[in-house]
Amino acid sequence: MSAPIPADPAAKGRPGEFDLIGRYFAPLAGPGAFHLDDDAAVLTPTPGRQMVFTADAIISGVHFLGDDPPGDVAQKLLAVNLSDLAAMGAEGVGYLITTAWPRDLDEAWIADFAQGLAEAQAAYSVALLGGDTVATGGPLSLTLTAIGELPGNSALRRNGARAGDRLYVSGRIGDAGVGLGILRDGLLGGAAADRQRAVERYRRPKPQLALGCALRGLASACIDISDGLVADMAHLAEQSAARMVVELHRVPISPLANLIGGAKGAIVAGDDYELLFTAAPENETRLLAAAREVDAAVSCIGQVEEGQGVHIIDQLGNAVIVERGGYRHF
Amino acid sequence: MSAPIPADPAAKGRPGEFDLIGRYFAPLAGPGAFHLDDDAAVLTPTPGRQMVFTADAIISGVHFLGDDPPGDVAQKLLAVNLSDLAAMGAEGVGYLITTAWPRDLDEAWIADFAQGLAEAQAAYSVALLGGDTVATGGPLSLTLTAIGELPGNSALRRNGARAGDRLYVSGRIGDAGVGLGILRDGLLGGAAADRQRAVERYRRPKPQLALGCALRGLASACIDISDGLVADMAHLAEQSAARMVVELHRVPISPLANLIGGAKGAIVAGDDYELLFTAAPENETRLLAAAREVDAAVSCIGQVEEGQGVHIIDQLGNAVIVERGGYRHF
Repeated sequence: MSAPIPADPAAKGRPGEFDLIGRYFAPLAGPGAFHLDDDAAVLTPTPGRQMVFTADAIISGVHFLGDDPPGDVAQKLLAVNLSDLAAMGAEGVGYLITTAWPRDLDEAWIADFAQGLAEAQAAYSVALLGGDTVATGGPLSLTLTAIGELPGNSALRRNGARAGDRLYVSGRIGDAGVGLGILRDGLLGGAAADRQRAVERYRRPKPQLALGCALRGLASACIDISDGLVADMAHLAEQSAARMVVELHRVPISPLANLIGGAKGAIVAGDDYELLFTAAPENETRLLAAAREVDAAVSCIGQVEEGQGVHIIDQLGNAVIVERGGYRHF
Repeated sequence: MSAPIPADPAAKGRPGEFDLIGRYFAPLAGPGAFHLDDDAAVLTPTPGRQMVFTADAIISGVHFLGDDPPGDVAQKLLAVNLSDLAAMGAEGVGYLITTAWPRDLDEAWIADFAQGLAEAQAAYSVALLGGDTVATGGPLSLTLTAIGELPGNSALRRNGARAGDRLYVSGRIGDAGVGLGILRDGLLGGAAADRQRAVERYRRPKPQLALGCALRGLASACIDISDGLVADMAHLAEQSAARMVVELHRVPISPLANLIGGAKGAIVAGDDYELLFTAAPENETRLLAAAREVDAAVSCIGQVEEGQGVHIIDQLGNAVIVERGGYRHF
C-alpha cells in the first residue's frame, strides 16, 4: 500500500480504507490472497502452463456512464479485462483491483459494486488477489489487472494471420453501440426486447473465454472487439502485415443497427467484446465444431489477403467507405 | 483495452493513445509483452517457484506532490509496489501500469515519466508487461501491478511473529516524513546535505528487495513501512495476534527528526519503505550476516510478547504515548 500525504482528517465516522476492504473486498479474496491481510498475494503456477497478464482502466463519464448501476460497472470492469485474456486463448485465474472513490461516494454504491464483482467473479471462475483503495478528488476510476493461464506456447496472437486464411467474428455486432446510443443519446425506436438486450450488452458485456480457449491451435490470429470491428481488425491487419477483406453483408449485425447507421455504423461501434479471428480454411470444420461445443455463434465474414489495411466490400464486391472507428483519448 | 464512450474528438494534432504507448512505453516492454502490441502479455513461470502479485495506486496531490519531478513520480510508483514484493521476500519480475493523464498534461511530462520508469526498471531488474493509457478530467492517477516470484513456500507473511521473537527495522526512520515536511510545509533547519537526503528519500524511496530475499527462512514475519512504523507494526501485531514492544531509543531515526517532533514524530511518519520484521533469537546471527551480505543496515528495536497491540517504551521502561499514525482515506 502506498502512503498518502497526511491531510486534515475529514469525514470522521465514515468507514476507513481498511474497513471498506475488510467489509466488501476481503470476502472476494481467493486462495493465496490471505484475506487481503498481507502485502501481496502468492500463487503457485500450474506446471507446464504459461501465465497471461492484462490491465485496463475504466473511468466514470469516459468508459461508463455515471448512472450505470454499480453492479453493472463491476461486471464491465472485470469483463473488459477477461475479454483480453479470451483474445489470447487464456482461462481466467484471478485479478487485482484498484479503486479511486470520489470522497462523496455513497457506501451503498461500494456495497453494490462489490456485490456485482462477487457475481461476475463467480460467473467467470476468477478470484480477487489484491489491490488498493484510495480516495480521489476526480471522477470514479477503476483499474483491474487480470491474470490467466494457458498451455505452453498456445497463446493466440494478433500477428499470425496469413493470406488465404478466413476471417471470423463471434456473436453479433453493434448491440453495445445501440445500447450506448439509447442510454446516452435517448435513441428511440425498435422492439422493447431488442432495446433491452442492446442496453444489457452495453452495460454487461460477456467475455468470450470459452470460445477463446476453444480456438487454441485452430485460429491463426485473434483480438477482442473493444474499439469497434473495423478499428480492431486494423490491429490484426497491422500486426499480421496482411490485408483484411470484410464482406459487409456477411457481418451479423444488431437488429437495431438502423438506429446507429446500419451495418456501416455497427462495424465502427465499440464495446461488443466479441472475438475477431482468422483461421486457415482447412481448420474451418474443426473450428466451427469447437465453437458449437461451447455454444458460441461464429460467422465467416471475409478473408485475409496479401497487402495491408482493412478493405470493406458489399455483395457486388464494391468498396464500402466507413468512417474509421476507434476513439482517441488525447 | 476498454472502449471509451465516443466523445467530441478534441485535441487534434496531439499524439493519440497508441502514439503515446508506442513512443514512450513500448521501448520498456519485456520478453512476453510483445512490444505492447497484443491483448495481453505471456510469461513462463520458473518451475518450482511461486508468483507474487500486488497493486498500488498513487494520485497527484494525495500520494505525491503536483510539482514532484515526473521521473521521481515514476520511480516512486514502481518502488512502492516493489516494496510490497520485498516485504514478502520476493524478487521482482515485471509490472503492468495504468495511467490516467489529465487532458492538459504536457507530453514532456509523459516523456520524463517514461524515462524515470526506464531507469527504475533497470535498477530493479523488472520489465513492463502491459497496461492501459486513458485521459481523465480528474487528477493524474497512476496504478501499477507488480509481479514477483520466490521459491515455493518461502513467502514472508505478516502473521508469523511469535512471543520471544525479536523486532527489527532496516535503515532509518523519519527521513521521508522530514522530506515531505520540507517540500509541502516549508520546514526550515538542519544541514543542507541532510535536508537533501530527506527530500530524496521522500521522492525516490528504495524498495528493500535484496534484504527481503535475504530474510527468507530467517524472519518470522515482515511488512514494509508505508503508513509509518507504528501503524505498520500494528498490522504485524494484529495478524500475528501478538504484542509488539518497541524500545524507542533503539529505533534509528532521521538526523532531522527534530523537525517533525523527534523520535515520536518519526515513528508515525510514513513513506520510508524500510522493512519491519521479526525473527527468533536463534536466527539473529545468521540474519545479521545475511543483511550485511546485501549491504542492508538492520537494527533490533524491541521484542514480541504475548498479548496484542503496539507498546512503545523509553529507556526506563516507561510507556511512551504517540499519536497513532496511519492516514485515513475516507
